[in-house]
Amino acid sequence: MISSLANARIKQVVQWQTKAKERQKDRVFVAEGLKMYLEAPETHIREVYVSTEFLERLRRQTDDTAVDKLSRTGYEEVTGDVFAKLSDTRTPQGILAVVEQPQYELNQLLQQENPWFLLLENLQDPGNLGTIIRTGEGAGITAVIMSTSTVDIFNPKVIRSTMGSVYRVPFLYEDNLLATVKRLHDAGVKTYAAHLQGETYYDSFCFQGPTAFLIGNEANGLSRELTDQASARLKIPMEGRVESLNAGVAAALLMYEAHRQRNNGK
Amino acid sequence: MISSLANARIKQVVQWQTKAKERQKDRVFVAEGLKMYLEAPETHIREVYVSTEFLERLRRQTDDTAVDKLSRTGYEEVTGDVFAKLSDTRTPQGILAVVEQPQYELNQLLQQENPWFLLLENLQDPGNLGTIIRTGEGAGITAVIMSTSTVDIFNPKVIRSTMGSVYRVPFLYEDNLLATVKRLHDAGVKTYAAHLQGETYYDSFCFQGPTAFLIGNEANGLSRELTDQASARLKIPMEGRVESLNAGVAAALLMYEAHRQRNNGK
Repeated sequence: MISSLANARIKQVVQWQTKAKERQKDRVFVAEGLKMYLEAPETHIREVYVSTEFLERLRRQTDDTAVDKLSRTGYEEVTGDVFAKLSDTRTPQGILAVVEQPQYELNQLLQQENPWFLLLENLQDPGNLGTIIRTGEGAGITAVIMSTSTVDIFNPKVIRSTMGSVYRVPFLYEDNLLATVKRLHDAGVKTYAAHLQGETYYDSFCFQGPTAFLIGNEANGLSRELTDQASARLKIPMEGRVESLNAGVAAALLMYEAHRQRNNGK
Repeated sequence: MISSLANARIKQVVQWQTKAKERQKDRVFVAEGLKMYLEAPETHIREVYVSTEFLERLRRQTDDTAVDKLSRTGYEEVTGDVFAKLSDTRTPQGILAVVEQPQYELNQLLQQENPWFLLLENLQDPGNLGTIIRTGEGAGITAVIMSTSTVDIFNPKVIRSTMGSVYRVPFLYEDNLLATVKRLHDAGVKTYAAHLQGETYYDSFCFQGPTAFLIGNEANGLSRELTDQASARLKIPMEGRVESLNAGVAAALLMYEAHRQRNNGK
């Protein structure tokens, strides 16, 4: 049992929680909460921390799923004070796992049957990114590709708001999205830039073949360069005086339109 | 010019920023940032506070829109320190307005031609609510109706994330959503409960007539009572292991499906 806030392992977990560089260096991230622990692939779990109180509560439950998984992955018991220090939330549940970052390759993703992608350029809001990953799993997307200027997907707020989808939706960061778009075109993928100056409504296109949607930064939208490179520009209709939709909402509408077309044969 | 943090008016604005009861008592809310000030209906603006620095920056600009509006609404200049105290944000823009809360009546809203509504039961996340109001304007909804247990729409985080739509989308709080659903039914409005156990996909229904969508709390979904009362239950398809979508995303998909049907005649 760890009861000291000065414990070296505790300090290391705090570094992983708070610093993208530390996560990047060690290729791990922190997944907090029972749901995130239970859904984490067992082979990817490196360390588990559980508060004494949470452990006692688990043992009183009739459902053994968590207790069984803990006996397989192993865990470190810590005091409530120590857990509060580890936690990124105000009201910690009392369990977190240090998980290996998954690695995906664009070439492999492109070899999937009729792949479709979401490309995010410089998205900044952690909640938006997490929600997009979650919605992406719901819509059945092949992968999410992000510019390196996009918020870190392993940021604890992003991880939380994916509600576990981060374990299942393939994703990768690319330095140069322009080059990525070219690679997608070479592989026969059509790219659609979501743009306020798009000429055609999003539901007029056919997304039944290999497809990628390009979504820009919350404040500035897609860059000119990336927009110009896309196969086509599309817009989402907006009534009233709305100037743009939330990036997570725009991504959801496009992904579910593709889902509809790919499943209904419309 | 106000330079004292102890100034009574400053203390009052802080109360309005931080306490729903104070806002409710005086029937006002605080709208922060230049965009929110510029879009606020002039007849509803009660007070305006501007930092010295922001005022100087405005006067150096060639665009006179803000300066002209300030000369009509009047304003109080405050020091940077005072503005920082007034502000709900970490990096304040330097302008905020105290605005009268708009008042809407369900009876009047029901008299609009072919009305359609979103009903929110106990939604808790301010960002979700703000995004829903913004998306609602984009989709052209008639009004958003919320249970009184829903987060306060005049919470500064909600106001900010509406991006100005709070001025234009009619909304109201109802103590008893069950009674509201009955009133909607009596007025010929069909109500659709978004529910994980829905039997039919959302895009199989016709939303071209008077329509209301019922969306539940982020963690628990719609209550049993409200679900049972609805004309029909609908579900959104979900691939992978996704158990539910973000409430703002679910609302967006339903509202834009209704928008599509109402505009395309599909």
